[in-house]
Amino acid sequence: MSEKVPYSNYRLTARLEIRNRPGMFAKVVAAISKAGAQVAGVDLVEVSGGRVVRDVTFDVSNEKHGYQITERLDKLSGIHVHSVSDPIFLMHLGGKIAIQNKVPITTRNRLSMLYTPGVGRVSLAIAKHPSAVYNLTIKSNSVAVVTDGSAVLGLGNLGPEAALPVMEGKAMLFKEFAGLDAWPICLATQDEDEIVQTVLKIAPVFGGINLEDISAPRCFRIEDKLKEQLDIPVMHDDQHGTAVVVVAALKNALKIVKKDIRSVRIVVNGLGAAGIACVRMMLAAGARHITGCNRSGAVLTGSFARLHRMRRDLYGMIHAQPADRKYDSLKNVLKGADVFIGLSSGNILKPQDLKRMRKNNIVFAMANPDPEVDPKVAFKYCKIFATGRSDLPNQINNALAFPGIFRGALDVRSKKINEAMKLAASNALAKLISPKELNPEYIIPGIFDKRVVKAVASAVAEAAARSGLATKRTLAKK
Amino acid sequence: MSEKVPYSNYRLTARLEIRNRPGMFAKVVAAISKAGAQVAGVDLVEVSGGRVVRDVTFDVSNEKHGYQITERLDKLSGIHVHSVSDPIFLMHLGGKIAIQNKVPITTRNRLSMLYTPGVGRVSLAIAKHPSAVYNLTIKSNSVAVVTDGSAVLGLGNLGPEAALPVMEGKAMLFKEFAGLDAWPICLATQDEDEIVQTVLKIAPVFGGINLEDISAPRCFRIEDKLKEQLDIPVMHDDQHGTAVVVVAALKNALKIVKKDIRSVRIVVNGLGAAGIACVRMMLAAGARHITGCNRSGAVLTGSFARLHRMRRDLYGMIHAQPADRKYDSLKNVLKGADVFIGLSSGNILKPQDLKRMRKNNIVFAMANPDPEVDPKVAFKYCKIFATGRSDLPNQINNALAFPGIFRGALDVRSKKINEAMKLAASNALAKLISPKELNPEYIIPGIFDKRVVKAVASAVAEAAARSGLATKRTLAKK
Repeated sequence: MSEKVPYSNYRLTARLEIRNRPGMFAKVVAAISKAGAQVAGVDLVEVSGGRVVRDVTFDVSNEKHGYQITERLDKLSGIHVHSVSDPIFLMHLGGKIAIQNKVPITTRNRLSMLYTPGVGRVSLAIAKHPSAVYNLTIKSNSVAVVTDGSAVLGLGNLGPEAALPVMEGKAMLFKEFAGLDAWPICLATQDEDEIVQTVLKIAPVFGGINLEDISAPRCFRIEDKLKEQLDIPVMHDDQHGTAVVVVAALKNALKIVKKDIRSVRIVVNGLGAAGIACVRMMLAAGARHITGCNRSGAVLTGSFARLHRMRRDLYGMIHAQPADRKYDSLKNVLKGADVFIGLSSGNILKPQDLKRMRKNNIVFAMANPDPEVDPKVAFKYCKIFATGRSDLPNQINNALAFPGIFRGALDVRSKKINEAMKLAASNALAKLISPKELNPEYIIPGIFDKRVVKAVASAVAEAAARSGLATKRTLAKK
Repeated sequence: MSEKVPYSNYRLTARLEIRNRPGMFAKVVAAISKAGAQVAGVDLVEVSGGRVVRDVTFDVSNEKHGYQITERLDKLSGIHVHSVSDPIFLMHLGGKIAIQNKVPITTRNRLSMLYTPGVGRVSLAIAKHPSAVYNLTIKSNSVAVVTDGSAVLGLGNLGPEAALPVMEGKAMLFKEFAGLDAWPICLATQDEDEIVQTVLKIAPVFGGINLEDISAPRCFRIEDKLKEQLDIPVMHDDQHGTAVVVVAALKNALKIVKKDIRSVRIVVNGLGAAGIACVRMMLAAGARHITGCNRSGAVLTGSFARLHRMRRDLYGMIHAQPADRKYDSLKNVLKGADVFIGLSSGNILKPQDLKRMRKNNIVFAMANPDPEVDPKVAFKYCKIFATGRSDLPNQINNALAFPGIFRGALDVRSKKINEAMKLAASNALAKLISPKELNPEYIIPGIFDKRVVKAVASAVAEAAARSGLATKRTLAKK
């Protein structure tokens, strides 16, 4: 399978019955190209009588485009479309994760040690020494990936079932990058208290709780309440994972343009969970001039002192403002800004709008799949450009943060994930790129960089220990 | 590792530093044998200077016995006990199950299909067609193993953390025997309504709910409420798994002694979750003369009509009886009985007590680890003898039932597990032993018999279809 695919990930495989005559396949390729798609592969399935059956795989820009092409193919004389399949859907059949037994149950003796009666001794040992649950069960390595399906990716309130493929994907990342065993928990409720109560009740099995795709403002209160009541790490990844990576990338970008975080003017667009967390973390990292916009305009303004004072409840601050107030527009506040951070939706800015910013401007346009500004043109209007996309340089991806943060927190059995640990994660991430390597197209490591999880985990574990939250000492590793 | 171990599963490995002189190791073996234990294996770890370090593994009868022996070894001149380890605990270190990714995340393209942005299309498809959650996620193959830790094995109310090793073991059995992906849910509550509410909230991810080790009478009401409110199979295994296997074994035993289930007198001792479920299922299977005992004596008596009428609430019937009532004793009601079914505690009967039963008596003494009557002698006083133990013939083990029941129910996406499905499971299990093979020491298949899960699953799936509960048609498999 070629790796050259359009970012849309709409790739189809059509099973075609083709009259067995010279030139027929060329006709297929021509039709697909003419429709603006690209053939990625061909497999022969069967030749019988006067017909050839072939699987033709091609990349299209979206679902509609795919339908148009297969319809067009079906209308060609001598060609019949049998079926159309989609590799993304094929990869999801039956789910993406499974349970694996660490020890095979091959004999009666094995069984009686892993299950009754042998396991009874292990249960009694935990009943007697509760902390032994960390040594003798999966708790020390397990994370619940919890959602209510209220804010699934950028797609909205799709409910718990539709959120499950995303949570399974998240569990895969936990395993692949950090060796953690994560299980998806998709809740049949969007009530704040019910979510909190349910998570409290299922917590005994888990060493950590990763909240995911829960809409604002409920996500803030749910996270706060769980942190207060549980003695295991709890983190809403959409907030903090994103903020950790944004701040790391921003620090490196500022090094390149030789500006100080304390003096730059920063505009954040999109004040959902991620946007608010970024503002909070940038304030903690020293930023003093931040303006936050949502669809109404620049709703988050004020002195550093005011913002800092309200840091823990920026959402409340925004929504406490008078309803009839008129706000400055995003385009206006962009004037003279040094940094633009977009966590909103695609193509809300024209590339030319970036001209209003100061020289050596930094633009993180992280809306998915289409950034806030067209990436094909935007780079001309800024010094440093980053997005959330994997097909462009400088991908801001929270997969750089959460695996290492949980790995580090669980390694030392930290009771919490606090601000110091997140800042440590962010610093460790930024520092992975040496001053020599640093350049406008390399401000953040790639997610397949093997050093990432190790560096983040060790910084987080150290910060947990310094904060007095670590309950387990580990041997120093370097 | 030798498989010849005592049923207690107390096996220790001691690391000994031994003076390197002829005859020293013989001294170790002699000391262990003299103390009534048995050397199962020896490994050389190191020879240095005048010392040999060896790992000596030996089987003991219980924890105290183990301490005595290691103390004794340590006192021998020229021998020093470095450390003592326990293979059951070693097997539990870090837990027994793990998450496995079905597809490795090796490239950016893979990642963008398994996670964002590709996964978004899968989420949208499920939002549009809710039943697609069965095709495109783990739901169709996943089971929650839910406990509140209130009745862990026969050990009592040990709480959710101490129950976790048992639930992990259960998950292993689901995987090993039925290929199902089960995840342990140990609840930080023992409140009936909170348990129900929590399970309802986490249900979207699961294709079935296996309730486990929840004490009576809460287990009855919790199961009833969940069955009422969920459209996925729910089963309390301690009740129904046990009952399915007991009834299967009983049917086969009755064939051997040529007695009819409708005419035999059955005494059940122990009226917890399992005991009550066995009574209910035997009534459903045609039994007419059942007496049930608990510590107060024969509390469950009455005509078939009365028992049958109260079948759904036998627990309530028992507890509605006047407090000052005197009950007949177990030994008295055993007189003239054909069948004894013990689900209580060890050694409550003397082997001679079984003489009071009728000729060709059937005794299932299933208390763990010690049966209700000493198995070394009991077999002399009965025609057919079965226990829950794996080191004796005729092991009544619910691992014969639950993997196949859930496999069958999930294969056809049954909305429930009903009485007909459980009876079908029981019949399928009994029928696996042909009339020719059937004998007093082989009334039930072994748990490693590969035919078991297949036979049970297919019978359950068929019964679900006949009951109109199956929502997915499967191709007929034989």
